[in-house]
Amino acid sequence: MDWKTEIETASARIEGKTVVTPVMRSDALWSREIELKLEQLQHTGSFKARGAFNSLMAMDVPEGGVVAASGGNHGAAVGFAAKSLGYPAHIFVPEMAGPAKIAVIERSGADLTVVPGEYADALDMAKRYEEERGACQVHAYDAPLTVAGQGTLLREWEQQGLEADTVLIAVGGGGLIAGALAWAQGARKIVAVEPMSCNALTAALKAGGPVDVPVSGVAANALGARRIGQICYDLAAAQGITAVEVPDGAIVEAQRSLWQAHRQLVEPAGACALAALQWGAYVPEPGERVAVLVCGANPAPDPL
Amino acid sequence: MDWKTEIETASARIEGKTVVTPVMRSDALWSREIELKLEQLQHTGSFKARGAFNSLMAMDVPEGGVVAASGGNHGAAVGFAAKSLGYPAHIFVPEMAGPAKIAVIERSGADLTVVPGEYADALDMAKRYEEERGACQVHAYDAPLTVAGQGTLLREWEQQGLEADTVLIAVGGGGLIAGALAWAQGARKIVAVEPMSCNALTAALKAGGPVDVPVSGVAANALGARRIGQICYDLAAAQGITAVEVPDGAIVEAQRSLWQAHRQLVEPAGACALAALQWGAYVPEPGERVAVLVCGANPAPDPL
Repeated sequence: MDWKTEIETASARIEGKTVVTPVMRSDALWSREIELKLEQLQHTGSFKARGAFNSLMAMDVPEGGVVAASGGNHGAAVGFAAKSLGYPAHIFVPEMAGPAKIAVIERSGADLTVVPGEYADALDMAKRYEEERGACQVHAYDAPLTVAGQGTLLREWEQQGLEADTVLIAVGGGGLIAGALAWAQGARKIVAVEPMSCNALTAALKAGGPVDVPVSGVAANALGARRIGQICYDLAAAQGITAVEVPDGAIVEAQRSLWQAHRQLVEPAGACALAALQWGAYVPEPGERVAVLVCGANPAPDPL
Repeated sequence: MDWKTEIETASARIEGKTVVTPVMRSDALWSREIELKLEQLQHTGSFKARGAFNSLMAMDVPEGGVVAASGGNHGAAVGFAAKSLGYPAHIFVPEMAGPAKIAVIERSGADLTVVPGEYADALDMAKRYEEERGACQVHAYDAPLTVAGQGTLLREWEQQGLEADTVLIAVGGGGLIAGALAWAQGARKIVAVEPMSCNALTAALKAGGPVDVPVSGVAANALGARRIGQICYDLAAAQGITAVEVPDGAIVEAQRSLWQAHRQLVEPAGACALAALQWGAYVPEPGERVAVLVCGANPAPDPL
């Protein structure tokens, strides 16, 4: 797959539909200055809008409309993108997504079914809906159009002047980091950060291929994919990615520090990459310039 | 006063001490695209850090240290700047500042006295402390060094590529907008936005000079100055500023929309300028490019 071309095409396709999210430098979060991209300012509060717009604008959407299964953020993004493009959309959300994320999906105008259980259960129902109604599915992370859409993020950041040698990115199902790996092609070091309590990529790298893992913890409603996407795994294995894990306590601490230092109220998943630096799961070399991607901000409970 | 030079000097002085806060464009907040500067990412959650650093770095700070009276944000900024520069600091805060702002000041490491009543009462106590201890005062808005520090904001925004014809800025005591007027010198239209329930600038423009006004409403703990600063009044009157007022309900609605559209959780004062656009207190001409300054994010209750 010619990922560079796919991502260039995706960037041109979604231009004007997604927010060019702001970047900044901070010396208030870690012992050295770091670069940040505040992707939680994206429509519906996470990077997922990129993959959703890219998928729906590239696909031939049938009369049955669009269907998605989501731990929350992807569903909100697909609902928002579908409404913005004039398509009907039905989103299946696992109950564990929580009321704050479910409210974001409701505001998008999409039809919504809350499914008891976790992400995999919602995915089953979405697949059944797809077959019965002839709707088209937008996969949350393991589809080329989704990955290419998420890949526009690192490309955009580079156009905004990213200087870092190393970029830390949180991993759930792996769509975001797959996009980053696909764009970087080794030109920049990408570090994968997972919660210890849902570590599908780390487990897959250890096992030599995607395997099921148990999912729990503070970031599970965004990063709790039971199994890493095959696209992500293949890119990560081919590039020999560095993957690190952080405990829930470090994630909560990173979340608190983003609020206290810069008034950015993110969800745990959005602070996961920063936690790796603060907690020492990833220790950069002296002189290594580091960037952290802040990727989502649909916390529960909703503060308003 | 040669404000351009003062502000250039202030910018050089505080470089590296304050955050270069991010800017962005949004089409999700109003019927047309607007430019935003997210100054609430500044140290201690508001623009006040600029004036505080500029004042303390320019002044000859005595052994008695630094004293400030503040509705909250200025006190937090002076406490933070003093600690960062190695000076003792004592902050007098009116009780109406609320626990969230008081917590920000406590975290700065400054000594803190909570004064029953409103801003003017805290100012009285700060003046007494200044005389008794030989501490130096940093005024919240009506001092040249404070105004020059706040003036670095519009200068920085221009360096980041600000294109707007018109910039909307919330007004309390007037330090921030005075800085903007002092920098712009008429080259760009500055619109002052006040809550109807604390409108010291509007009242002063009507009366032909600063007068006392009653203060109340959702933004009073940040914008509730009883009387507009003389520096602000003089600049505003000389430049024939456009001043508009918004009701509390519009401020709360703007606050909600910043959270829903871009996950920026700000305090009411921080959303006040946006409210003028959304509520129609200021109606731009067709083709007029508009920018909104988001200036503070120490909401109560603290969401964490």
